[in-house]
Amino acid sequence: MAMLELFQSSRSKYSVLKSVLGFYLIVVLAIITEVPTVVEGARIRHYKWEVKYEYKSPDCFKKLVITNNGRSPGPTILAQQGDTIIVELKNSLITENVAIHWHGIRQIGSPWFDGTEGVTQCPIQPGETFKYQFVVDRPGTYLYHAHYGMQRDAGLYGSIRVALPDGQLEPFAYDYDRSIILNDWYHKSTHELSTGLSSKNFTWVGEPQSLLIQGKGKFNCSSLSSPSPSDPNVCNPSNPECSPYLLTVIPGKTYRLRVSSLTSLSALSFQIEGHNMTVVEADGHYVEPFVVKNLFIYSGETYSVLIKTDQNPTRNYWIQTSIVSRPSNTTPGVAILNYYPNHPKRTPPTALPQGPKWDDVDPRVAQSLSIKARKGLGRAPPQTSDRVIVMLNTQNEVDGFRRWSINNVSLNHPKTPYLISLKHNLTDQFDQNPPPDGYDFAKYDIYVKQNNSNATTSSGIYRLKFNTTVDIILQNANTMNPNNSETHPWHLHGHDFWVLGYGLGKFDIYKDPKKYNLVDPIEKNTVPVHPYGWTALRFVADNPGAWAFHCHIESHFYMGMGVVFEEGIERVGRLPSSILGCGASKGLRVP
Amino acid sequence: MAMLELFQSSRSKYSVLKSVLGFYLIVVLAIITEVPTVVEGARIRHYKWEVKYEYKSPDCFKKLVITNNGRSPGPTILAQQGDTIIVELKNSLITENVAIHWHGIRQIGSPWFDGTEGVTQCPIQPGETFKYQFVVDRPGTYLYHAHYGMQRDAGLYGSIRVALPDGQLEPFAYDYDRSIILNDWYHKSTHELSTGLSSKNFTWVGEPQSLLIQGKGKFNCSSLSSPSPSDPNVCNPSNPECSPYLLTVIPGKTYRLRVSSLTSLSALSFQIEGHNMTVVEADGHYVEPFVVKNLFIYSGETYSVLIKTDQNPTRNYWIQTSIVSRPSNTTPGVAILNYYPNHPKRTPPTALPQGPKWDDVDPRVAQSLSIKARKGLGRAPPQTSDRVIVMLNTQNEVDGFRRWSINNVSLNHPKTPYLISLKHNLTDQFDQNPPPDGYDFAKYDIYVKQNNSNATTSSGIYRLKFNTTVDIILQNANTMNPNNSETHPWHLHGHDFWVLGYGLGKFDIYKDPKKYNLVDPIEKNTVPVHPYGWTALRFVADNPGAWAFHCHIESHFYMGMGVVFEEGIERVGRLPSSILGCGASKGLRVP
Repeated sequence: MAMLELFQSSRSKYSVLKSVLGFYLIVVLAIITEVPTVVEGARIRHYKWEVKYEYKSPDCFKKLVITNNGRSPGPTILAQQGDTIIVELKNSLITENVAIHWHGIRQIGSPWFDGTEGVTQCPIQPGETFKYQFVVDRPGTYLYHAHYGMQRDAGLYGSIRVALPDGQLEPFAYDYDRSIILNDWYHKSTHELSTGLSSKNFTWVGEPQSLLIQGKGKFNCSSLSSPSPSDPNVCNPSNPECSPYLLTVIPGKTYRLRVSSLTSLSALSFQIEGHNMTVVEADGHYVEPFVVKNLFIYSGETYSVLIKTDQNPTRNYWIQTSIVSRPSNTTPGVAILNYYPNHPKRTPPTALPQGPKWDDVDPRVAQSLSIKARKGLGRAPPQTSDRVIVMLNTQNEVDGFRRWSINNVSLNHPKTPYLISLKHNLTDQFDQNPPPDGYDFAKYDIYVKQNNSNATTSSGIYRLKFNTTVDIILQNANTMNPNNSETHPWHLHGHDFWVLGYGLGKFDIYKDPKKYNLVDPIEKNTVPVHPYGWTALRFVADNPGAWAFHCHIESHFYMGMGVVFEEGIERVGRLPSSILGCGASKGLRVP
Repeated sequence: MAMLELFQSSRSKYSVLKSVLGFYLIVVLAIITEVPTVVEGARIRHYKWEVKYEYKSPDCFKKLVITNNGRSPGPTILAQQGDTIIVELKNSLITENVAIHWHGIRQIGSPWFDGTEGVTQCPIQPGETFKYQFVVDRPGTYLYHAHYGMQRDAGLYGSIRVALPDGQLEPFAYDYDRSIILNDWYHKSTHELSTGLSSKNFTWVGEPQSLLIQGKGKFNCSSLSSPSPSDPNVCNPSNPECSPYLLTVIPGKTYRLRVSSLTSLSALSFQIEGHNMTVVEADGHYVEPFVVKNLFIYSGETYSVLIKTDQNPTRNYWIQTSIVSRPSNTTPGVAILNYYPNHPKRTPPTALPQGPKWDDVDPRVAQSLSIKARKGLGRAPPQTSDRVIVMLNTQNEVDGFRRWSINNVSLNHPKTPYLISLKHNLTDQFDQNPPPDGYDFAKYDIYVKQNNSNATTSSGIYRLKFNTTVDIILQNANTMNPNNSETHPWHLHGHDFWVLGYGLGKFDIYKDPKKYNLVDPIEKNTVPVHPYGWTALRFVADNPGAWAFHCHIESHFYMGMGVVFEEGIERVGRLPSSILGCGASKGLRVP
């Protein structure tokens, strides 16, 4: 009882105790409900999920959300390395299809369960139950989310946490393990957002209305001019759904905090007031530890940071996330680091910390450069590559539509998913001309707005020779607005890549490769390309299948900012019939 | 120029002339664009349609609308009796499937192209083009609309007008032929409306925000508390999209006006100020002419009325539609009968006429009773029937969900469309127990709210013996609210039925059939059942296939208010593979 006295106010000791105990009981129950619904044996983890529309108020503003078993974020998948995950996904949306991607899981031997609509499967129709089955072959922090249209924005996402096998230890010590996902949040529906993007009368999605920390944000209802702020049925600041996320900790311990971002648009800074963070994992790979006050995190990235709860234990602390890289008026996202047994609703006595300046690129590049493989634990990259593809990232106007393009080709999904067309040799189902391996390096000025009048849309893909090593140079450039270059987080399906280097300006194909880090590059699946900069990646095309590689900003990918790689299609086994049913695969029988 | 002087004001003669000519040019162009895109030979009418989401402001309020070739209502199908209609429908919705029903077309020999998702086909997936092909075998006024989820509410509908073959004459004379569709309109999305209806936390759709006449209405933007009325980007009364529909007529002529309703909820009264209407056609059947001032019309009905433009030609007249049968605050829908060459925007000098009292049932029943087959042109009904099915219409609570039921069974669509399951004998795809042929006539009090605790949901259907004559008695009752019984327009697919009679109170299976009109009953495909009343229908089960019969109120059907009939399934030919691809028909190969 001694500690409880610290936060006595007008409430009686008893009511405070009841409230605190009630809260911790809820925490315990929440943890219990996160275990798989059915565990068949030790190494198969079986989930039954139902996705549907529900009215939710994650940031106090009520709107339709695609929930997973009634929640957004959905249930966390907890597994051990080598486990088989089975998710039976029931689509209870009314007229909409769905597909779920398992972000960071390479799907070795199961390329058909990558969950990428149009690339690896036909979408799951309303009323149907689709069975995903795959092995989580590496420990680490991963994600899942909708990968169809812009449905990720509607709230269909969650965490995957893969532990080491029993008896094996991480190369760092911690007492507790927690996961949070950062997100940005729009009040318009995904139908409204995507219609605006794909109309000739182009309407940009704009900055998000709020930032969510583990599904909870706080939109300022009184800032609403429309709808009226007075309508609590539309926006209600006292709705418990939008109370801040609480990370309750015991003083004097070390926490592993798995921080992920699934923002639709925003690059974020993340901080915990008064607590340094030691970065130890990135996208499932061990990082040579380094300490940050602000963690910069881009959509599709996951990090583990260690924090020590060694600060004044008689108070709570702010957790803050804010937008960088874009001039945004979006209010920072806020959560509470709750030192047990302080009352979880006790406001920290200090002002909410500010985030870094949005337009200060240097610390972001510096963090990118700091991320290296943990000594002795990184896998060495091949020292040479067999093919180099330079990918110029530009915004374009194609046939009157605003698009994003790679080497002036903007991706158009075909009706039949690539994996099916490739496996069954349906050559009329997508453009057989591959997009180019580069752009006009000599003439193109990346610092000025270009007309890119030769920009086009295509369903063509890159076909990679199996088991060869491929270098990708992501080259950033000016957008269609003067003096503007954006940050793009690129995500590769089916593989990890080594991050060989970052640079500012135009990549020099003769000089820059000499500066590559071939000693201890980190492996990742998502990496930023900074404004007017380049990022160099290397991967081995050793996973038979068809794999998307795209900007993880939802609206950019929707506007064509992605490519597809094929490798070893002849090694892909018999496709499950469950992925068929659209385009030319309607009525297709698997031989 | 003499007549132009009649409406001179501050504008110069020249500008008025230009404006009037411009308007009539637009009318002419609008008519020209309604011809089929491709006509292959004389009797095949080939349309290419694309459906997608677009921002539109049909009643001045901007929202997402499902358009057909950029329009809502979509293009009119104009054909002659015996023509074959081919519609290649491209689904450009982003994540949503679609299906279009050809309302009133019996689909003899083509039951797979009835367009009823879940009954006759799998839905059309995004990116796909589906080819509907059917014969319009009878002259008259028909409709098309989405038949999936509640997509009809999103604006996907239009007219079908089938003329007699060259040289044949209608049994009434007229100079010009015009079509208008009446509708009600909601500002919420169909996703929001349907989620509210199918949640345990039931949210009723409420009364519509406006009424549309041929896709044009006028919502009072200043009545908005949310969003702010000051935002013209949300609601703009000067948007030309929501200028009133103009029916331009030449004085001294007879017009055939084809009036249809595709309301989501509302029963309507329709009137043209100062002009009587002579009803001559109903649902494609000739009516023994009768004159009305107000035409009552229920969702799914079509009428042809003749009007004479014999009034004072120096002014325009109001066209008005308002809601009956429900206490609604929705503003009446308004259009203008524009006597040429008055300026089309010239406001009629009189006050807008009022509609009839919403709760006065008698004139509505009287109109129902007035509709008889035209003398000498009606097809006589069989004088006896082989089976009688009494269908008690009730509102229920089933497993915590609000539903509508028939004999306490609420329809649940199965994953595999009935036509496919029946044809391929997939008996595990729907409940093989049929719903009951009646209810507890002796004990059930239709005038009081009943618990209906035995209500259930089922995918069971009525299987009819081929070529038998079936009587259906629709029995209305009290809803779950005290002293309330609603009006339900029931629509039968694949057939017309004879309307044998209407009555108030509980249908007496011994006495009431003696009062049937077996002499000159009208044939229809949609008929109202009035509050606390019954309606008796007869049809011959002579069209092999699976056919929906349901309340045409979109939310009532969505809540289970429908049944399915099967007849002659063994006579159904080989199903086209294009209708497959969902549920158990995924990967099904047609033998």
